[in-house]
Parts: sequence; structure tokens; C-alpha cells
Amino acid sequence: MTRAEPLLLGIDLGGTKTAVCIGTPSGRLLAARRFSTHADSPPEQWRAELAGVVRSVMVDMEVGWSDIRAVGLAVPGPMSVKTGVVIGPPNMPAWRNVPVWEWVKDLTGKPVVINNDANAAGLAEYRFGEFKGVSDLVYITLSTGIGAGVIAGGKLVQGADDLGGEVGHMVLDPDGPPCPCGLRGCFEVYCGGRSFTRRVREAAGDSPSPMLLEEAGGDLSRLTVSAVARAAGRGDQFAVSHWNEYLERLAHGLGHVVMAFNPVAIVLGTIAIHLGETLLTPLAERLPRYAWRRSLSNLKIRPSALGTEIGEWAALALAAEALE
Amino acid sequence: MTRAEPLLLGIDLGGTKTAVCIGTPSGRLLAARRFSTHADSPPEQWRAELAGVVRSVMVDMEVGWSDIRAVGLAVPGPMSVKTGVVIGPPNMPAWRNVPVWEWVKDLTGKPVVINNDANAAGLAEYRFGEFKGVSDLVYITLSTGIGAGVIAGGKLVQGADDLGGEVGHMVLDPDGPPCPCGLRGCFEVYCGGRSFTRRVREAAGDSPSPMLLEEAGGDLSRLTVSAVARAAGRGDQFAVSHWNEYLERLAHGLGHVVMAFNPVAIVLGTIAIHLGETLLTPLAERLPRYAWRRSLSNLKIRPSALGTEIGEWAALALAAEALE
Repeated sequence: MTRAEPLLLGIDLGGTKTAVCIGTPSGRLLAARRFSTHADSPPEQWRAELAGVVRSVMVDMEVGWSDIRAVGLAVPGPMSVKTGVVIGPPNMPAWRNVPVWEWVKDLTGKPVVINNDANAAGLAEYRFGEFKGVSDLVYITLSTGIGAGVIAGGKLVQGADDLGGEVGHMVLDPDGPPCPCGLRGCFEVYCGGRSFTRRVREAAGDSPSPMLLEEAGGDLSRLTVSAVARAAGRGDQFAVSHWNEYLERLAHGLGHVVMAFNPVAIVLGTIAIHLGETLLTPLAERLPRYAWRRSLSNLKIRPSALGTEIGEWAALALAAEALE
Repeated sequence: MTRAEPLLLGIDLGGTKTAVCIGTPSGRLLAARRFSTHADSPPEQWRAELAGVVRSVMVDMEVGWSDIRAVGLAVPGPMSVKTGVVIGPPNMPAWRNVPVWEWVKDLTGKPVVINNDANAAGLAEYRFGEFKGVSDLVYITLSTGIGAGVIAGGKLVQGADDLGGEVGHMVLDPDGPPCPCGLRGCFEVYCGGRSFTRRVREAAGDSPSPMLLEEAGGDLSRLTVSAVARAAGRGDQFAVSHWNEYLERLAHGLGHVVMAFNPVAIVLGTIAIHLGETLLTPLAERLPRYAWRRSLSNLKIRPSALGTEIGEWAALALAAEALE
């Protein structure tokens, strides 16, 4: 079959799921499939499964290897762009120094561009998102953890050791709670879903308020940031106090982002997608405590329009880099 | 006269002095002269004086307008690169919306590149400094105030409103002392010389310790950060406690810089030039509380080798941008 545009293969390795997709540089997502990463199993098993899923997606799409021009590979950090190795993501215990770039190169025989998932998502927003082509923008994963992909002057802020834009581990309070990363009082400890909900659960103890419990679906172990926000919206005072702290810390962390990069837009992931104005309105009220009004006056803060397919778009954005 | 290299004219407008210089893109500073900015007087007076000083430097050097290829103009922020206007530096009350780019363009008839002084200094370090050509580096003014010029991936982080890299006003403690910028607990409130020494003076009250007074040359109104560091080094307990706080806050602020940009090098201005290892050694001990060891492992932190002529180099670096 012939096509007007070259095709790109995207692979997004996540702690839970791996996404495989085919799309175009202009932003069409033609096919996508996900499979369980099984992060506790030997990575070689993932390698074998990946080969099968890539093959089946290509067969379903009637795409041959000659149609694919480049491959994008988004992986969790810490990783190395230079060596193409996944070094050791905290929540993927079996993945230690895995040469995943080489595996994908061997599988596909195509140019493979690898980067960490947050950087790749920043590129995805720059290529495909609401602020496509806006040369100063920041994407922030606001999910279980907090990562960022920063575009400054139309270029990704990669950093010397692939650790540029690690704003989730800026220390908001040096005397704050310990973060699994080894620092204390990081932005992520306060506003990453995993740490935040754990602290709310601990504070609730054995007698959580009925409203909070209800919003968590009757099981506090399934508590989410959104559930706390909803309980706060219903007037639950325990939830209100935690939700207010969440918002205040979020404003503090994003204030740092604004002062460091002065972007036109900050695009927020998961939690902001779920909460929308419930998050954005009180956030905007708090931001002037943490950033200059002059830096905020033209700033837009939005939930990502790429939504839950950000991983697929991220991998395609990396593949598109290979065409330049 | 003929020359192998094109000549550049540099103009560095400061709150106290203005520097005029002639140099080359490869980094020779051939002539420099400074005159008082008289920041309280009408800027038109500065304009007239600038014309005279530029003329006399050129005459002394036997340089004609045909020898000059481009002009660099470094000015205090807030300013606009797009309009070439100095908007209103806090310590230059008479300078409000001054079209200084246009003035210099009219004077010289050459391509004029304008930027704020901190960004220009970042470019100077990138072009002429110890880490020449290192594509991820941050220059930090550590003087009366704190500004930064950030090079990421070989490009200046300018920001959407020319406010990229304003790390001096990242909020380290939202409940901290007010900063003249309008925020509270900014990095600059703790580590800018003006705010730091004012707070030390206030804490000392009417009975400063003899050692501190001696280090300040007998006059606490002339207290400097270096004087506090020296008194601390001699064991003055009052000075020790303030100096320790200075170092801790400096580590916190630079930790943010490391996590945001992951540079290869951080080059520090004035105060670090004066203090050298007295500052850098205890700073390095404190940094791991505020930034990942992985991000710090290859990081070099140095006093600027461009020293007190950073303003001249900054203006020349801007001029050199016009040649590209």
C-alpha cells in the first residue's frame, strides 16, 4: 500500500502497561494496542511479547517494515539517552540496566529515538497538543508521580545527564516528609498521587470521615487525589484541609516552573484531566504567591488535550524527531 | 586599518556604571571604559554621555564605524527583547520605558542585540568563559541581587516574556521575609547581598559583635556577605549562625537550578569570586539535601573566570550573536 505520509512506530514502556502504536508525523494515530509490562518479570519476557504485539499491530494495519520510517521509544527514568539503557525505575524492580534501545533497534532495523516518558510527553505537546508549535511550554505529569518535559525556545531541556526538568523533586520544604527519591519535602511528596494519598490515609487512620470513604468507593486503599477533591467540594473538613494543602503546594511547585522557564503554557496530566476547573481555578488564585504577575499574565495552564493517550503520542513524537 | 576579525561594540548599562568596550568574537577585549550611569537623572542625559564615550573609545582605538560589525547592549530587567525597551529596573527610578535599543541603533547604525544583563552574562560564559562551548551551563549573578542566564542545549532560556531563568525569585519559604519584588522568602531575600546584609544589620541592632564590626571596616552600613563569612571564619557565633543560613539557602536555591536544568556547570558571580572555597566547599556539602546525587555527580560549580569584567563580556557576547 502507498501513503502520502511516512509511518511512525511508537513504543511507550510504562510500569504497568506498554503501548504500541502506529501514526504519522502530522499527528494521526492510526492504531494502538497495549499489553501488560509485567514489571516484576525478567525484561527478556517483555522483549518477546513486544515483538509479537508489534507484529500483530502491523499485520492488522497491513503495514510492512518498508512503510515504517522511524521508531520512538518512551521509557521511565532514570535512563540514558546516550546508551539507550533503562537504568532502574523505582517501581520496576526487575528492570536494572536494560539495553532497551538496542532491543528495539534489533527488532525493527529502523532509526530509534529514545527518551524518558516525561520528556517525550513534552515533545508530544509541542508537536501534537493544544499548544502545538508554541516554543516555550512545559508538560507536567500530574499522576502517581510528577515529571516534566520542558520545551524552551523550541528545544527540549534534556540536561547534561538526561535529568533536565526534574521539577517533581525540587525541594519545597527541606523539613518535609521524606520522598522515596532520597530527598525531603519534594514537590512530588506533596502533589504526586501516590505520596499524597498515602499521607491522607495515614492521617485518616482507622476512622476516616464517611464522605471521604464514600468518595473512595468504600475502600481507602483506593483513595485518589480526585476523591479527596470531591470530598472537599462536599464540605468534608478533613478533606478540605488536605485538599487546600495540595493546592498550595501545587502552586508553589508550579511557581518554580514559571520562574525557571517562563513558559507560554503549562499542560498538566492525569489529575488535572480528571479535575479540570476544580483544580485550575483555586490553583490560579494561589499562583501569585509563588511567581511574578508579569510572568503569569500571559500564562495558560490547561489539562492535556492528548488525554490518556499521552503515552502513544509521546512515543510518536520521539519517532518524528528521527525525521529531522 | 585592517583586521583579521570583525570588531564588536559592547555596551553594558548598569544601575551604577555603564561600560563601553570593543572586542572580537573570538574573545579579545581590546578596550573598555566606564562612566557613571546617574540612574536618578533623565535617561536622555545618559544617552548624550554614551555617545561621547563611544566616540572617544573608538578614537583612542583608531577604529571607524566601518570596522564595527555589530553592537551588544546588556541592560537591567525588566526589559523587553522584542521592543528593545528598558521597562523599569527597581534601582533605577528615572528609567521607565526607555527605548534604549532604538537609541543605540540610531547612534551606531549597526545591528544591535539587546538582552537583560543576566542572560547576556550566561551567553558570555558560554562564549568566552571557563566552560566555553559547554551546552548546558548556568551563570548566576551572586551580588546585591540574584539573576541567572541559563544555557540549555546550547540555547539561551529566554522565556516567553524575557523572564526565563529568574531563579533569584523562586520562593524558598512562602512564610519568609518579603522581597522588594512582591513575593516572600525568595532565593534573593536570603542570598542577595542587599537583603542578606540588611537582615544581618537589623539582627545585630545597636550592639554588633566587635569581630563583625571590624570585618565591616568599622561601619555596619558597609557590611558585605564576605565580611559576614570572614567573621564566621574567625568564630564569631552571631556571624556563624547567619553565614550558615546563607549557605543553606544558597544550597536550596542552587538545588532548584540543578533540578530544573541539570547543567554541567554553574558559574557564580561577585560573592563567589570574592570568597572562593570559603563559599564553595561548605556549599558542596549542603547540596545533596536539595538535589539528586545523580544530577550533582558531574556538576562543576565555579566562580566566574570572567571576573569583574563580566559586564563587558556580556555585552560583547550579545554583539557576537548578531553575526550568526
